[in-house]
Amino acid sequence: MEAMTENEGGRDKRGWERFREVNGEASEKIMQSLEAISPDLARYVLEFAYGKVYDRPGLDMRTREIVALSALVTMGSATPQLKSHIHGALNVGVTREEIMEIMIQMAAYAGFPAALNGITAARDVFEACDRMGES
Amino acid sequence: MEAMTENEGGRDKRGWERFREVNGEASEKIMQSLEAISPDLARYVLEFAYGKVYDRPGLDMRTREIVALSALVTMGSATPQLKSHIHGALNVGVTREEIMEIMIQMAAYAGFPAALNGITAARDVFEACDRMGES
Amino acid sequence: MEAMTENEGGRDKRGWERFREVNGEASEKIMQSLEAISPDLARYVLEFAYGKVYDRPGLDMRTREIVALSALVTMGSATPQLKSHIHGALNVGVTREEIMEIMIQMAAYAGFPAALNGITAARDVFEACDRMGES
Amino acid sequence: MEAMTENEGGRDKRGWERFREVNGEASEKIMQSLEAISPDLARYVLEFAYGKVYDRPGLDMRTREIVALSALVTMGSATPQLKSHIHGALNVGVTREEIMEIMIQMAAYAGFPAALNGITAARDVFEACDRMGES
Amino acid sequence: MEAMTENEGGRDKRGWERFREVNGEASEKIMQSLEAISPDLARYVLEFAYGKVYDRPGLDMRTREIVALSALVTMGSATPQLKSHIHGALNVGVTREEIMEIMIQMAAYAGFPAALNGITAARDVFEACDRMGES
Amino acid sequence: MEAMTENEGGRDKRGWERFREVNGEASEKIMQSLEAISPDLARYVLEFAYGKVYDRPGLDMRTREIVALSALVTMGSATPQLKSHIHGALNVGVTREEIMEIMIQMAAYAGFPAALNGITAARDVFEACDRMGES
Repeated sequence: MEAMTENEGGRDKRGWERFREVNGEASEKIMQSLEAISPDLARYVLEFAYGKVYDRPGLDMRTREIVALSALVTMGSATPQLKSHIHGALNVGVTREEIMEIMIQMAAYAGFPAALNGITAARDVFEACDRMGES
Repeated sequence: MEAMTENEGGRDKRGWERFREVNGEASEKIMQSLEAISPDLARYVLEFAYGKVYDRPGLDMRTREIVALSALVTMGSATPQLKSHIHGALNVGVTREEIMEIMIQMAAYAGFPAALNGITAARDVFEACDRMGES
Repeated sequence: MEAMTENEGGRDKRGWERFREVNGEASEKIMQSLEAISPDLARYVLEFAYGKVYDRPGLDMRTREIVALSALVTMGSATPQLKSHIHGALNVGVTREEIMEIMIQMAAYAGFPAALNGITAARDVFEACDRMGES
Repeated sequence: MEAMTENEGGRDKRGWERFREVNGEASEKIMQSLEAISPDLARYVLEFAYGKVYDRPGLDMRTREIVALSALVTMGSATPQLKSHIHGALNVGVTREEIMEIMIQMAAYAGFPAALNGITAARDVFEACDRMGES
Repeated sequence: MEAMTENEGGRDKRGWERFREVNGEASEKIMQSLEAISPDLARYVLEFAYGKVYDRPGLDMRTREIVALSALVTMGSATPQLKSHIHGALNVGVTREEIMEIMIQMAAYAGFPAALNGITAARDVFEACDRMGES
Repeated sequence: MEAMTENEGGRDKRGWERFREVNGEASEKIMQSLEAISPDLARYVLEFAYGKVYDRPGLDMRTREIVALSALVTMGSATPQLKSHIHGALNVGVTREEIMEIMIQMAAYAGFPAALNGITAARDVFEACDRMGES
């Protein structure tokens, strides 16, 4: 596993950079919570999902979060991750209006129930941001 | 139903414009084939999916096709529509490299099998385009 | 969008009729709640899902709600919509016994976990109805 | 296993009756093909799916096939079973028009791609029936 | 239905044995709760899922629970059943470490969101066991 | 990316070892075909899926392939990967009888259609092996 970690005894450097780009101020808290549940899966999230995939130059972070939201709304069963990536999308510059558009477009692809649950998740996140004075 | 159709006896005007934007030269052939199978579903595709959803100003067509690809790869079970939207994505300016990036990102969200099937579909479409001298 | 709305400044007339047929006394409350979250998706629910699809003559409302329940239990990830359509099914004359039969049949098609979750949702709705003195 | 089989050395009697009701003239061929692949799963199909679930009095066979079609179109990944149950639905009196209505309704619940694949499967079955002079 | 029940007026004998093997001390409580919701589905769970499938000699109970966990994490939408089978897996000798490995492997097959939800469910069950002084 | 590759200019060493353990004699052919489609995804399959996940000590290769089969049958939409892992399961010592048991168990978890498609895939692979004189 050492070969993958560029950061002795710590978090994968590139992965952690990309992770913070997406998760902003909440990064440390989210990662600590994930590390508490499963240090190994936490490491793979940084090494593979963020350190390899999100670090690739072919798509900007804005587009990657649009891709993530579309996948998560289609699945329908990953509400915590969906909400987390709605925050992430806002952090990398996707607007609230664009997030709502993605959810509405899903009505045609994944059906109205998926779209409705996506919009409800988005509203929950927007209201939480408003209470916190964010975005 | 009349209220929805702006084009007497014909196809929903705005939907058909958006549909041609996505499907390009293949539009007439795809739509005729769909109308032969189900005139009513064909009409809803134009009136609702393209005439309402794709006609909305909040996301450009490039982003809408990125959203569509992400949803279809996640589903895994809609290969004909996935291939059709890979063509569509190319038509509205998504590059082959970007399409491959979306598929690779799906490995982290929907798993490697979904990503592999997405990449295989993309390769099939790219080769078909090469044979036709397109994109 | 005007062409679709038959009701100046208001709700799609046919869609709203069908929506009330399914959702009964709860209709105004459900629709206002949906309009508060996303006026556009709310409009599409009335214009397309109810105004077009549910307004079609080929299946009676009872059968349409049986179809809806079967789809929602199979998805497994749309519990709020499943509960809403269990209410809807009762409103258009599907009996509690028939709803339980649909859930039990799903054990063979979508597996026991989906059937169990469907039955749990049905029980929750039946108990809520009993408390309210309905159906 | 004996306790379940009412038919010594043979097929579950009630299950086989219900199976023939749904699958009509093709029953013997379908069941032999299934028995050749997996005698045990074939037995469970008759004993549980048809002998228990389909034998229950709460829903008529027509409704059970409507439920089956709705579930299978929603899944999207079970095309052979979907086609088999489109035949079955026709056998128990669901009309072609009603089958098309179910597929169209799925556009609102499971999305347009699922509905399109359902309609394509239905068209394939209808054409096969026309060639055979059935339904 | 009588032919299936070996236990006059009671629970399918073999199914109930297998069910207790998986569900341990919680068996009576779980089954009573299921019987209260749907006596018929409860009976099928014992007669078919446990009395037929789990009673087959081809796989030991440990492996069957590993298969069950893999399926339930992949679905993503059956959290109550997932938690119940995490308990079951522990009861038949799958270790906490093995359960975490299954969840981590799912990151590659069903994606990181499914794996994360699986790990969260496992942690919840492990903590509940710790509070109860089990496993 | 270099940090991940232990094998200069070549394939991830540990991942390639695990990959060959699962895929046997077909490994070179499968990997070359994957590298031709997407060198990057091919690298991640070796580096992450096999080099990290499958290289973990917590589960033996036999169990990992049982987990993989259960996930792939549940998905229903990844037939090429399912067939590939049926070969893989045989290669690491899962017997044909055990593979059939997994498929039959899926009838209770993911429904009969998924189980039937899994069994059909298994039969196809077994017959191909028989023709090749394998397993």
